[in-house]
Amino acid sequence: MPDKLPEAQRKAALAELPEWSEVEGRDAIRRSFQFRNFNEAWGFMSRIALTAEKMDHHPEWFNVYNRVEVTLSTHSAGGITDLDIKLAKAMDRVAASLTAD
Amino acid sequence: MPDKLPEAQRKAALAELPEWSEVEGRDAIRRSFQFRNFNEAWGFMSRIALTAEKMDHHPEWFNVYNRVEVTLSTHSAGGITDLDIKLAKAMDRVAASLTAD
Amino acid sequence: MPDKLPEAQRKAALAELPEWSEVEGRDAIRRSFQFRNFNEAWGFMSRIALTAEKMDHHPEWFNVYNRVEVTLSTHSAGGITDLDIKLAKAMDRVAASLTAD
Amino acid sequence: MPDKLPEAQRKAALAELPEWSEVEGRDAIRRSFQFRNFNEAWGFMSRIALTAEKMDHHPEWFNVYNRVEVTLSTHSAGGITDLDIKLAKAMDRVAASLTAD
Repeated sequence: MPDKLPEAQRKAALAELPEWSEVEGRDAIRRSFQFRNFNEAWGFMSRIALTAEKMDHHPEWFNVYNRVEVTLSTHSAGGITDLDIKLAKAMDRVAASLTAD
Repeated sequence: MPDKLPEAQRKAALAELPEWSEVEGRDAIRRSFQFRNFNEAWGFMSRIALTAEKMDHHPEWFNVYNRVEVTLSTHSAGGITDLDIKLAKAMDRVAASLTAD
Repeated sequence: MPDKLPEAQRKAALAELPEWSEVEGRDAIRRSFQFRNFNEAWGFMSRIALTAEKMDHHPEWFNVYNRVEVTLSTHSAGGITDLDIKLAKAMDRVAASLTAD
Repeated sequence: MPDKLPEAQRKAALAELPEWSEVEGRDAIRRSFQFRNFNEAWGFMSRIALTAEKMDHHPEWFNVYNRVEVTLSTHSAGGITDLDIKLAKAMDRVAASLTAD
């Protein structure tokens, strides 16, 4: 069971996730991804679904057409843990490969 | 381009969608689906993604783990059209097959 | 790392998988799934993709439209292991829920 | 209903698909895609599944782990049509974006 990140580690981790912002009133981070169309957004979500299931750590995500809004937090820990940081980085990597071409 | 359903048709259509409710302050309908786990929820979303892309009509949907919350409305028409009714029925059918076994 | 199932266990396991048959000339099992359309076949594959990735054990599978042909074997063990039996059972369960409705 | 491409058009079309080769003994083309892992291969397949369903034209494809082998032909026309060329190009584009990063 992962623990909430201590303040120093949390700060360091978020510094590596410049596209993510902290959610007000809740120990969570969020990012909005914009793709070119639903096909791309779904390609992103399909890869992350595999990653999430493998980690047994699932995002809160909202999708409409080309937009995916993600909130990450670890329920069992009551806040941001290493699992959220890992999942956020995986999302950033996959999204970068989709928007780069 | 689909038109907003006239009141009588809209009423008749929603009568066939008892699990869906009207969204307050917006001409849209919504339903919350509860599955047994992420695997099932994702199986549902994967089938609906195909249906939506084929119809060129996409849902607003939120997922966390085994829960999928859907809002349907047709942006270009400013309200509920036949496309939303069709997509809602497709969702009901797929969800029923998942929860029946 | 899983080991090839000893003959007695293998026989008992295959007895619980009546839809699967042994591949000639290779220590593997296979089954052909027939769905109603691509949408259903893809719903099946999407759920199994999650299962496979979580198990870190992936099928050999062929799809065209509503048909999915699967071959299971564990490369690292040179034959059928417990992982194949588990994955075959997961496939049977998901397929049954799709064809039952 | 699409028609088989006449020889000149077919030649011109295949010239734009250098990664694809003609299948012996059958009027079809094929390509083998190699990704880094199952996650990437599945991301590719998930995007193409949407494209195929929208076109109502489905590939014959085989997957194991990071490899996807595709054969394209139009059954109703008994050979290669414009649909196959379009789907092959869509596959090339999606694969290029995945392998470029």
